Amino acid sequence: MPRRYTLGKRAEQHAATRARIVAATLDVYRRDGFGAASTTAVAAAADVAPATVRNHFPTQADLAAAAAQAVLVDSGMPDESMFAGMDVVGARVAQLAAEIARFFERSASWWAIIQRDRALAAAWSGLEARYYDDLGRLAATALAPDGRDADPATVATVVNIVGGALYFALRGTGLSSDDAVELECSLLLPWLERGQSGSIRPIV
Amino acid sequence: MPRRYTLGKRAEQHAATRARIVAATLDVYRRDGFGAASTTAVAAAADVAPATVRNHFPTQADLAAAAAQAVLVDSGMPDESMFAGMDVVGARVAQLAAEIARFFERSASWWAIIQRDRALAAAWSGLEARYYDDLGRLAATALAPDGRDADPATVATVVNIVGGALYFALRGTGLSSDDAVELECSLLLPWLERGQSGSIRPIV
Repeated sequence: MPRRYTLGKRAEQHAATRARIVAATLDVYRRDGFGAASTTAVAAAADVAPATVRNHFPTQADLAAAAAQAVLVDSGMPDESMFAGMDVVGARVAQLAAEIARFFERSASWWAIIQRDRALAAAWSGLEARYYDDLGRLAATALAPDGRDADPATVATVVNIVGGALYFALRGTGLSSDDAVELECSLLLPWLERGQSGSIRPIV
Repeated sequence: MPRRYTLGKRAEQHAATRARIVAATLDVYRRDGFGAASTTAVAAAADVAPATVRNHFPTQADLAAAAAQAVLVDSGMPDESMFAGMDVVGARVAQLAAEIARFFERSASWWAIIQRDRALAAAWSGLEARYYDDLGRLAATALAPDGRDADPATVATVVNIVGGALYFALRGTGLSSDDAVELECSLLLPWLERGQSGSIRPIV
């Protein structure tokens, strides 16, 4: 079926060009900042014509969204499969903290770039929102092995403690990744355990 | 001493005009956003001449800094005096959580505006940095009644838990201000207590 083969090859070339443009965009963001990633600059970095960039990504927003998606996929944002075979809440939350920490380490350079490049942060605000959505869903799943609805305040607490701000602050004080995760767990696990034998929010 | 009196009156008028311009600037930020706060718009809102605005605040950055300072002062960012007479770490940290929560409630409308107005957030990034500096200093003071240096990872943890992100997330799930503070304390106080009878970061 030569015709099908040809179409497949075209689609492959199309995908390869798209990937090259996305990789070049990330290079420009990293090297010169979001503001420098004009169609011309991206085309030059990807070694394609500006029209090719516009053909794949009609607007700067399309390009920024594709670049954000590539960062999430490359960094391997964890999913629910990490809880497979685990039915103890504390173990699931510890697993979440450890897996998210590994994700942070893989994507650390990008978090640092977003911190200092406000224009990129603005262009990627949708990415951040999706990250927090995903994390909220993972935390709710970790807290409710039986599929029931987890307490929203408990979900918010887990998201806040494993979500990145504390992790990077602790890494900044010199803690190793493992020690940062251990500290997060030392806050959360006894708190969750106390909560489970009565109110979810124990009075101290 | 008529001359001195006259100078005093002029200084008073100068300060009153300055305060009116700052208040008008905050009105424009709140109503139309940072982007709308041109010298002309601020002058109109303050009912002064544009040259008067420029005389008090040569640049937009000067105006933004003065507006930020006014928000912090009006909202009453707490200081070390809140710990007077308290020498138990847990009580001091609970006091910090409660006082910062009151500060958040007083300044809540501004945090909401910063969230949705990225240009204002950028102009006020210095304010945010100073808030975190102040909070870090307060947390370190809360943790070390004896004036010794507090463990940086413990300071970072206290800052993260009482610092705003968790508080507003909990308020967003429907918790009252008091319940949000109680939840923060239920995380921190037992953790600190365990830490004090050995390693500051207990292994769970």
